[in-house]
Amino acid sequence: MERISIDILHAEFRRILLELGFTEERGDRCARLFAENTCDGVVSHGLNRFPGFVRSCQDGTVDISAEPEILTRLGVIEQFDGLSGVGLLNAQFAMARAVEIAGEHGMGCVGLKNTNHWMRAGSYGLQACEAGCIALCWTNTTALVPPWGSALKRVGNNPLTLCVPHKSGHVLLDMAMSQYSNGKLEVLRRRGEKLPQAGGYDESGELTTDPGAIIESQRPLPIGYWKGSGLALVLDLLATIITGGDSTATIRQRQNETNVSQVFIAIDARSLAGAQILEETVEQILSDYVDVPAVDGGEIRYPGQGMLATRRDNLANGIPVDEELWQEVRQM
Amino acid sequence: MERISIDILHAEFRRILLELGFTEERGDRCARLFAENTCDGVVSHGLNRFPGFVRSCQDGTVDISAEPEILTRLGVIEQFDGLSGVGLLNAQFAMARAVEIAGEHGMGCVGLKNTNHWMRAGSYGLQACEAGCIALCWTNTTALVPPWGSALKRVGNNPLTLCVPHKSGHVLLDMAMSQYSNGKLEVLRRRGEKLPQAGGYDESGELTTDPGAIIESQRPLPIGYWKGSGLALVLDLLATIITGGDSTATIRQRQNETNVSQVFIAIDARSLAGAQILEETVEQILSDYVDVPAVDGGEIRYPGQGMLATRRDNLANGIPVDEELWQEVRQM
Repeated sequence: MERISIDILHAEFRRILLELGFTEERGDRCARLFAENTCDGVVSHGLNRFPGFVRSCQDGTVDISAEPEILTRLGVIEQFDGLSGVGLLNAQFAMARAVEIAGEHGMGCVGLKNTNHWMRAGSYGLQACEAGCIALCWTNTTALVPPWGSALKRVGNNPLTLCVPHKSGHVLLDMAMSQYSNGKLEVLRRRGEKLPQAGGYDESGELTTDPGAIIESQRPLPIGYWKGSGLALVLDLLATIITGGDSTATIRQRQNETNVSQVFIAIDARSLAGAQILEETVEQILSDYVDVPAVDGGEIRYPGQGMLATRRDNLANGIPVDEELWQEVRQM
Repeated sequence: MERISIDILHAEFRRILLELGFTEERGDRCARLFAENTCDGVVSHGLNRFPGFVRSCQDGTVDISAEPEILTRLGVIEQFDGLSGVGLLNAQFAMARAVEIAGEHGMGCVGLKNTNHWMRAGSYGLQACEAGCIALCWTNTTALVPPWGSALKRVGNNPLTLCVPHKSGHVLLDMAMSQYSNGKLEVLRRRGEKLPQAGGYDESGELTTDPGAIIESQRPLPIGYWKGSGLALVLDLLATIITGGDSTATIRQRQNETNVSQVFIAIDARSLAGAQILEETVEQILSDYVDVPAVDGGEIRYPGQGMLATRRDNLANGIPVDEELWQEVRQM
């Protein structure tokens, strides 16, 4: 596989976005998020998704110049209308605002409605961590998972991120409510690989590790069976109520996934505990977690640790890219 | 199975707690929580746990007269020391305070350290819903689950509750990070029943549906494999940082599970959306979720709906109790 430096990737994305009509500053930031997602190993929401993102800007699904507009302030909660703008930039704005509120009041919450796909949930968690905050954020999506016990997709996979700042690598939990995200299923199908655990049902109703069979049957498995199904539902309820925006029930009526609802919560961890104590606490907990023998003789890692290893490798050696996709992007 | 009215159950618990030295008001409230947990079908944290709770009051693990003491106010976040008091009453106090803060600032967060087992997480979520608030709360625990990839227990099962108020039955998601809670495994082993899905590994490292085998091997499965393991870790990090209290890494060094750390977050949903819009939004989302055919021909239920059916049945017909346990309690 060809390996491309993050700077080249960033420059290509940037060039294309500026040609689309992005301002320099916004095009640069948006391109950087796509490049970082790719560099961190989340290619499904980096390079692989970039051509589709460009098409959604071209067909008007994404309004490249819209910026979030404040609707309501209720104490530490603020509601914004994303005005169908760029999902990544809207989300970056919303998390920055949540961090600001947290700086003043310990905790801040921003609800963002009528926005578009933010690509990687973890991007905004890491953003908050860089500012010294704990972050929780999630989005609803169109219907992607059947409620537990059913075979019809009705609930989003509603990716949820929880992040905790840590100087030797932020803790980054970034998880969809399906056992495997659609992006992951597509990446593994493309590579012809099986899933490590059953990730859904095939057409005949049997659990399977074949990513293609799950994409065909449209029956991915929620994490923890009924628990992930319930958690996905509640995350959609919360997103809809906190933003005043559309729920999965409304979003799924549209042909494309638009007007999603997202929640951004930041907690000023340094003010709470003191930066020094915070660092020691996190270190102690993570050490206890990873310091156990692995059954396969490997290493136990905390969430975010694997991503950081991938990032370092890719920064040093270039980012492995699907050559076909990379050529497609270069010719855009 | 014998069926006992909730009033008799409540009166028996109350009698025993007053004999232990609880004040009338606190004994009554604590007894009510145990009776309601039992009535709602959560016997593992109701009647079944009551004798153990009484012993922990007698041996001094639980200080029956301690009340939470404020330590820090940071905007909408408050930290309390539970002073090793009654877990249920401490938690009820903390959620009430989070609801108060939410009433003033949209959102409130209370961190409670040095507290004891709160029995059912859902109790405090329902409490917030009755006050019109959305609630999130969770607790850390002693080490109960191996980190994903390992066979040694190092992470708590850290029950998490998310609740959304709804007039025809609050949405109540109440889930441990293990696929089955210890309480559930014990109840099913007691009844000689199998688990509906694999819930952990047996001594030979194979996935099993035998609750006894999982209790023996001490290898329960986290929900969604690596995802639940990561979520349990992050909930412990958050609980420890937000409360300034003990983490699972510290708690697991003790012989008994004491000095746990708990977080209570309330959001004033009525102020956010307006009570009428809130009700309609929740109704629309829940209808969309349950209105799908079930693969087994049964019904799809939202989280909390099954509990409400159990509660209604038990209020009308009495609560089924384990006769041996019930006799034990009556003779206390």
